[in-house]
Amino acid sequence: MSRPVPRRPEYHKINRDLLVLTYGALVAQLCKDYEKDEDVNKYLDKMGYGIGTRLVEDFLARSCVRRCHSYSEITHIIAEVAFKMYLGVTPSVTCNNSSKNEFSLILDKNPLSEFVEELPAGRSSLCYCNLLCGIIRGALEMVHLAVDVMFLQDRLKGDSVTEIGITFLKQPEKKKYRRRK
Amino acid sequence: MSRPVPRRPEYHKINRDLLVLTYGALVAQLCKDYEKDEDVNKYLDKMGYGIGTRLVEDFLARSCVRRCHSYSEITHIIAEVAFKMYLGVTPSVTCNNSSKNEFSLILDKNPLSEFVEELPAGRSSLCYCNLLCGIIRGALEMVHLAVDVMFLQDRLKGDSVTEIGITFLKQPEKKKYRRRK
Repeated sequence: MSRPVPRRPEYHKINRDLLVLTYGALVAQLCKDYEKDEDVNKYLDKMGYGIGTRLVEDFLARSCVRRCHSYSEITHIIAEVAFKMYLGVTPSVTCNNSSKNEFSLILDKNPLSEFVEELPAGRSSLCYCNLLCGIIRGALEMVHLAVDVMFLQDRLKGDSVTEIGITFLKQPEKKKYRRRK
Repeated sequence: MSRPVPRRPEYHKINRDLLVLTYGALVAQLCKDYEKDEDVNKYLDKMGYGIGTRLVEDFLARSCVRRCHSYSEITHIIAEVAFKMYLGVTPSVTCNNSSKNEFSLILDKNPLSEFVEELPAGRSSLCYCNLLCGIIRGALEMVHLAVDVMFLQDRLKGDSVTEIGITFLKQPEKKKYRRRK
């Protein structure tokens, strides 16, 4: 990630409830369309991927993030800048392995499922917020970072927190500064 | 509408781009599901209605609107408070008849279709943002106001502005203050 020239400085802030309810309508529609939870999850991830590839440009234009030098730094930017910007919350970040390529974003409350008390009947394998995984994956791919993203815990499934796991699949390429002779 | 006791004072402001892109995914999905534009429009309106019935409670809790005494006042609240709160824009309001029950909300730019350059191929009758009509209808019904809401102009269809028409169908009931003897 690098600091771009801000092209769209205006920052339209809105109350997030319309997003949360619109997202609920989207998930409900997909549950009508696909019988299997796995297919809904897959489709939400795919949709999220498409959204992520578009959102990242906007994110880079609006935020003032500098080039990141580690996976840890990238994950903190996602948690502290991107989540804050688009969902109004800041998940905590943990690193899950010694290779420092596996991280978790931990949310005490997940705003995207704020109005959902429980998963719909017969939908126990639904990853309600799987769009988020796709968005993170799509956005990072646009800055040449391959990741696996998945829900590791979900309050909607009875866990005490909601945890999104991000695994970075390869080292970011380092720019070579070589002077031509 | 009356001034409620604020129950949820926290106001989670977010950047609206995630809403706009998520809404785009919802419309795209409905276009896959329904062949006829009319059916997509109808379904968006229906979904919006459900969202409106839930959103109004949140709106009344967060905003400090007082009881309105005219349709004009209600329409101005929708434009200046609700649109600003949930979409980050303030449409202008015009009254369209002498009975003062027909109004228009006029948007020079419609944020919900910000990333849409044109309607999808073969979808010339699609009311892309019809969710908004349903939301307004659903929300007003919850405060005992029956309305017809529809797009009268749409920039996505080549019009110079986007115009949402609201027709109030009956007079709001006036409270009777009668002392018991």
